Amino acid sequence: MAQPQPLPAYAGYQHFIVTSPSSDHHPFVAHVEINRPAKLNAFFEAMWHELRRVFQQLSSDPDVRAVVLSGAGDRAFTAGLDVTAASEGGVLSADGGLDGARRAARLRRYIADFQECISAVEKCEKPVICVMHGISIGLAIDISCCADIRVCSKDARFAVKEVDIGLAADIGTLARLPKVVGSQSWVKDVCLTARDFSAAEALSVGFVSQVHESKAAALAAAVQIAGFIASKSPVAVQGTKELLNHSRDHTVDDNLRYTGVWNAAALQTNDVTAALMSGLKKKKPTFEKL
Amino acid sequence: MAQPQPLPAYAGYQHFIVTSPSSDHHPFVAHVEINRPAKLNAFFEAMWHELRRVFQQLSSDPDVRAVVLSGAGDRAFTAGLDVTAASEGGVLSADGGLDGARRAARLRRYIADFQECISAVEKCEKPVICVMHGISIGLAIDISCCADIRVCSKDARFAVKEVDIGLAADIGTLARLPKVVGSQSWVKDVCLTARDFSAAEALSVGFVSQVHESKAAALAAAVQIAGFIASKSPVAVQGTKELLNHSRDHTVDDNLRYTGVWNAAALQTNDVTAALMSGLKKKKPTFEKL
Amino acid sequence: MAQPQPLPAYAGYQHFIVTSPSSDHHPFVAHVEINRPAKLNAFFEAMWHELRRVFQQLSSDPDVRAVVLSGAGDRAFTAGLDVTAASEGGVLSADGGLDGARRAARLRRYIADFQECISAVEKCEKPVICVMHGISIGLAIDISCCADIRVCSKDARFAVKEVDIGLAADIGTLARLPKVVGSQSWVKDVCLTARDFSAAEALSVGFVSQVHESKAAALAAAVQIAGFIASKSPVAVQGTKELLNHSRDHTVDDNLRYTGVWNAAALQTNDVTAALMSGLKKKKPTFEKL
Amino acid sequence: MAQPQPLPAYAGYQHFIVTSPSSDHHPFVAHVEINRPAKLNAFFEAMWHELRRVFQQLSSDPDVRAVVLSGAGDRAFTAGLDVTAASEGGVLSADGGLDGARRAARLRRYIADFQECISAVEKCEKPVICVMHGISIGLAIDISCCADIRVCSKDARFAVKEVDIGLAADIGTLARLPKVVGSQSWVKDVCLTARDFSAAEALSVGFVSQVHESKAAALAAAVQIAGFIASKSPVAVQGTKELLNHSRDHTVDDNLRYTGVWNAAALQTNDVTAALMSGLKKKKPTFEKL
Amino acid sequence: MAQPQPLPAYAGYQHFIVTSPSSDHHPFVAHVEINRPAKLNAFFEAMWHELRRVFQQLSSDPDVRAVVLSGAGDRAFTAGLDVTAASEGGVLSADGGLDGARRAARLRRYIADFQECISAVEKCEKPVICVMHGISIGLAIDISCCADIRVCSKDARFAVKEVDIGLAADIGTLARLPKVVGSQSWVKDVCLTARDFSAAEALSVGFVSQVHESKAAALAAAVQIAGFIASKSPVAVQGTKELLNHSRDHTVDDNLRYTGVWNAAALQTNDVTAALMSGLKKKKPTFEKL
Amino acid sequence: MAQPQPLPAYAGYQHFIVTSPSSDHHPFVAHVEINRPAKLNAFFEAMWHELRRVFQQLSSDPDVRAVVLSGAGDRAFTAGLDVTAASEGGVLSADGGLDGARRAARLRRYIADFQECISAVEKCEKPVICVMHGISIGLAIDISCCADIRVCSKDARFAVKEVDIGLAADIGTLARLPKVVGSQSWVKDVCLTARDFSAAEALSVGFVSQVHESKAAALAAAVQIAGFIASKSPVAVQGTKELLNHSRDHTVDDNLRYTGVWNAAALQTNDVTAALMSGLKKKKPTFEKL
Repeated sequence: MAQPQPLPAYAGYQHFIVTSPSSDHHPFVAHVEINRPAKLNAFFEAMWHELRRVFQQLSSDPDVRAVVLSGAGDRAFTAGLDVTAASEGGVLSADGGLDGARRAARLRRYIADFQECISAVEKCEKPVICVMHGISIGLAIDISCCADIRVCSKDARFAVKEVDIGLAADIGTLARLPKVVGSQSWVKDVCLTARDFSAAEALSVGFVSQVHESKAAALAAAVQIAGFIASKSPVAVQGTKELLNHSRDHTVDDNLRYTGVWNAAALQTNDVTAALMSGLKKKKPTFEKL
Repeated sequence: MAQPQPLPAYAGYQHFIVTSPSSDHHPFVAHVEINRPAKLNAFFEAMWHELRRVFQQLSSDPDVRAVVLSGAGDRAFTAGLDVTAASEGGVLSADGGLDGARRAARLRRYIADFQECISAVEKCEKPVICVMHGISIGLAIDISCCADIRVCSKDARFAVKEVDIGLAADIGTLARLPKVVGSQSWVKDVCLTARDFSAAEALSVGFVSQVHESKAAALAAAVQIAGFIASKSPVAVQGTKELLNHSRDHTVDDNLRYTGVWNAAALQTNDVTAALMSGLKKKKPTFEKL
Repeated sequence: MAQPQPLPAYAGYQHFIVTSPSSDHHPFVAHVEINRPAKLNAFFEAMWHELRRVFQQLSSDPDVRAVVLSGAGDRAFTAGLDVTAASEGGVLSADGGLDGARRAARLRRYIADFQECISAVEKCEKPVICVMHGISIGLAIDISCCADIRVCSKDARFAVKEVDIGLAADIGTLARLPKVVGSQSWVKDVCLTARDFSAAEALSVGFVSQVHESKAAALAAAVQIAGFIASKSPVAVQGTKELLNHSRDHTVDDNLRYTGVWNAAALQTNDVTAALMSGLKKKKPTFEKL
Repeated sequence: MAQPQPLPAYAGYQHFIVTSPSSDHHPFVAHVEINRPAKLNAFFEAMWHELRRVFQQLSSDPDVRAVVLSGAGDRAFTAGLDVTAASEGGVLSADGGLDGARRAARLRRYIADFQECISAVEKCEKPVICVMHGISIGLAIDISCCADIRVCSKDARFAVKEVDIGLAADIGTLARLPKVVGSQSWVKDVCLTARDFSAAEALSVGFVSQVHESKAAALAAAVQIAGFIASKSPVAVQGTKELLNHSRDHTVDDNLRYTGVWNAAALQTNDVTAALMSGLKKKKPTFEKL
Repeated sequence: MAQPQPLPAYAGYQHFIVTSPSSDHHPFVAHVEINRPAKLNAFFEAMWHELRRVFQQLSSDPDVRAVVLSGAGDRAFTAGLDVTAASEGGVLSADGGLDGARRAARLRRYIADFQECISAVEKCEKPVICVMHGISIGLAIDISCCADIRVCSKDARFAVKEVDIGLAADIGTLARLPKVVGSQSWVKDVCLTARDFSAAEALSVGFVSQVHESKAAALAAAVQIAGFIASKSPVAVQGTKELLNHSRDHTVDDNLRYTGVWNAAALQTNDVTAALMSGLKKKKPTFEKL
Repeated sequence: MAQPQPLPAYAGYQHFIVTSPSSDHHPFVAHVEINRPAKLNAFFEAMWHELRRVFQQLSSDPDVRAVVLSGAGDRAFTAGLDVTAASEGGVLSADGGLDGARRAARLRRYIADFQECISAVEKCEKPVICVMHGISIGLAIDISCCADIRVCSKDARFAVKEVDIGLAADIGTLARLPKVVGSQSWVKDVCLTARDFSAAEALSVGFVSQVHESKAAALAAAVQIAGFIASKSPVAVQGTKELLNHSRDHTVDDNLRYTGVWNAAALQTNDVTAALMSGLKKKKPTFEKL
């Protein structure tokens, strides 16, 4: 893989590096790295607010058609919430003389805002491929469940860790993980015990789609998938993501109705002709920006 | 397997052959073949309208208790939409001077009608076992997701192909596939990339239940399952299909309530006694038509 | 495993034995045994009413934080409904001169009550680990689908048996099994055919999480999981169970909203501090009763 | 009102007369009359099948933009189900030796088909204004609840009559009436007692929008509303009907999402410009067919 | 109205009197009185537990086909929660040293149990007509929203009073009132301000169906409605109640499907024939018990 | 009414004036005025973005407990969308050479953003009382449906005007209006015809709660309601708003469950004691900020 190119439009972020991986080969792909490796990429409040802004920008950036998300450094995708930072200045610190209802109101707003930041990964209109390696616990699961496809390196060590610090996971794992994999016996097991699970186990239950020898290999594979997706019609790809996400939360009848309305506009695209022509002519199609 | 017998009541169809597979051994089983092998069983509009009529007839035919669906010929279950036919005379062809809203209205009605034709396979009150072999792409996935059980031969080559022609799949794959298998990372992967997947991969993710050496072997296995199901109480079998389909789109509480109302009538059957008696007497029960 | 201790508060039950497995090592764990081994632990009406009472008591018992459920004897977890008893005195027996609507009303109430008894296992606020061995058919599947985690011994023989006696399963299997495992092709197969499936098959589809050599080994493993869960913060564990159960029946957005409200109170616990402190001090935390 | 003109495309129906009311003044309006006045417009099976075909044709007829539905003759909109006909040849007649489950299957299919016929009025893409007069009981309520706007003459006598013949109304009244008016105390009252209610009461609870002195006056008013609607952009009108019907059965968030997708295509119409221009030029806009 | 007769089967209740109002004229009608007039019929915990038992018994009592619910004494239907009693011994009293999460768990169970007691009025399979007079505040609204039909005397003074004691109403008013009447501007007004509203206002918004001069007159009217309903087919009446309640919480499509399944059994009743015959013979039909 | 005081924290807004109406009498009340009277308070894009910011700030401002929303000037609450502005620079203007799918994507994002801005009024945690006068059309209905309580002056002239410019209303009217009033015949009438309706008609269908002689009188009444609400426990008031909004979009069972969890924290407030004490002591309670 050639040297990634920084994407100038994303140069202003502090905790995330956004590059174009090997830009000649993968135009339209953006690579987002969580960039706090000295702290195992653990999150504090400013980081999740920035994460939201990064993915909101990617969502409407016509130069981006697929996104790869990974963690900087060798040791961790992310170790989750930076508990020290959280207990120092945040909502979990002492609450003065507030009664239980007022503390609850404060916590509810805090959680809702936190959830919304992480959900920005899911709401990004472009497919997101998440690359996990090393320590991938707590918030790592919340975030990766918002991605469309998950791959990992064989050294990845996963855990839905929240129970171990006295919490039920509230930033999305309990909402999404049961819908991401099939076996609910397994979901209950890892969520109730907070035990580690390996890359191999993650693969066998369908949490990740591929396991690679190293982080580098996993990243290269993700970039390849992203590049492949980015070479397709963005009308087709982004419609497919939207309709699959809608499907998860609706009945089949409801999704069919929504799909019909969606495609009534989407089929008025030049991409179908472009795709069919390129098939006949055996050459790569070019699609207008979206 | 003995020679299948044509079912006279279904002799009038043009694009589908309906037979009784080896009728002495499998009464109550109907075998539907998509019959356009020279074109890889690709569909044009008249075919999906006929598919609906075939399955509506099967649904209320008291002589049928289970259905096997396969594609004629050696090469394909179906190669999906016949794109040439679609671009020639159909809704996707030139729209004169219609504005975007009017084109959308026309497309919306077209898609809704198309969806309804394919959904007839799911709405058929009798279990449908789908046998897939060779090329099984595009519409092949939409149709097979409407079946209850899927088996295939090892030469089956699957793809959710729509993205490759600039479309989001709108005839049911995006609505049903995420609910047919467990791993959503895999669903997103195959839907967003349009890549092929093999029989072995289909088995490992639970898309198909069995893989066989050849189309003939897969078909024989499907006929056996169908025959086995057809030997059971049709009240029990058809109730089970209905309640499982209801379950997919409802909460547990809602399904329990619906089930209670359903069985309040269904238990007023003679089949329970017939089944229990036959158990005691070690002989095969006979159930009245339904 | 040391000798289990009877739990005095549960001494009054007739068909269930409730003990503390090896109480020094596993405080807060209760072990419930279905206790009718001479009849393969088959259920009659008084038993499912008692099952409800047992689990309602466990649900609010502050001395219990995790529950193991198994069947007494070597031969069966449970052979399901005791058909002889059901046909003798119950609702399925002769109905005098009632018309179809009145028989239906009677059946509907009977089914609703039966469903509610079994659902008590799911509604128990504490995690339930179900240990299945030997004959595990019919009602065995309904009950075990209400548990959070399922393990089994390799001699377990499972079947969704209802179709074989002329019924659609109405006590929960058709509502829950499709949401417990991923492959719907498999669910339809076992529900429509009533065929047996083995421990290995149950493991491969994700119905059970572990298979062990013997019932004793499976039970020991379940007790260990339960003990491990019971050592965690009960606020975290019981919240996790509730939020995962809510997740199954709601959209992601709805679950996130509910989760935020739930945790707004749950985070006002001393358990977070206790858990963090114990992490720092490398000693086991102690949590107040809940 | 000038003499209505028969609409040739609808000449083949036996039990319904379809005309263009005073065609110079009300182009694009179709008037459907239930035409069995000698029997108080009571329905038998062939009639509701024909009703479905009439409204399916109207739904896609580009020359129709609004529909008025009324009953022929002076005495009744409709007296509902023709009980004599129903008991003679239909599903309610003797069932030979069928057991309760098989009778139920037969009834379930019959009811589903009947419901679908009546729902065709609601599914018609064009607004339907229902004019009720005289006897308007039983099926009259089911049908009129499928219309968009209801007006009546002051002699109208309404009743949800089903309870009086031993039935719960199953063709739509119990599904739709509670969503058509506000007071559920009133809905329960009229549905549980089967008592008559007058035009004045219907107006006060919001079941009808207008009460007129005579059937003729009510019809004229309905034709005027229909004509007024038919003079507007059909893209706007039909979108409004669809989005309001969707709203009834979905959350606000879901409807907003669906609306956004719908209008993303609908706003690509020339009608907006046409409407704005006609406003500036103070002349009536002309809209292309839809 | 003749002297009401006590119903012996209900003699054991302490806080509710259950009688047969003028039993010759109104067989099958039960009249339940909240019986704590000295305290304005205010509720404490034992009372709502008893209320549940009363309505559970009525629900399955074949001698009861309609229920009238009122408050004893001249001054109040009910003044709602007995705040003094609640603060003395109940869950709202001091909580020792419990942390916020543990207090929440205790409160959650308490509220859920309280809700379930009141919901028993709604779940009663027989129609309930609620007669409100005098002070009808707080819990009075929660309870009456569970009834099917509400009538009142002109001295009734209503208020959704909870906000005035620092609470959001949590026993059902906020869940049901918005679905009982049409104007949400009015619902928000009375719920957010806790202001009084009169019988006339209650009538004009559709909260009650009738206003009478006195409690006696209102009660007589309710008994008459109940008697009228009780003279109809119980299969039809109880089905109507069930289907209307289902309708409130489901889409039209879902309700139509449920209705079809329900009536597939319910139509297998002798009541239809009995009703039709009595119509022909001009005599009152007799229906078997249900 | 004394002179309103500007609220300094809201001084930076350009199109909205935020004051404290007669601040000695109504602490905790904020009054928001749409401030473009020269253009009949018509909206352009910058205005709805600002509207969102205003209501987001109010939502979390502990000094505000109730909000009044009105339009500046004598002539209009708002005339809705400023069509001239919209056609000049916005998304509705010429789209270059974009194909239908790409125009749709652009429109979809635009509508979603617009909807979200208006929904901020509904999501504001404090009750909003909307005062409507004069021209109140198009967006006026979308906005006011997001308020909790609506009052108006008798000169108010309302219309769901979108159909008249070739659009289906897509900013919330079609999603919320059917749930704000009871009669769907009326909703369909005004939405399909775009006809005007008066203050009197708005009152009779329950769209507004009060009609006053003048804008000033309506405003004074709204301020009074707001002041009254602001004098109550904010824990109770804001909980009541949240639970009523949740109720609209959920089943009764779901809302009861959510309510139980909500109040498990909310009841841990000092406001209950403060409210009860103030009742005993006959003095106005003081509640801490929330």
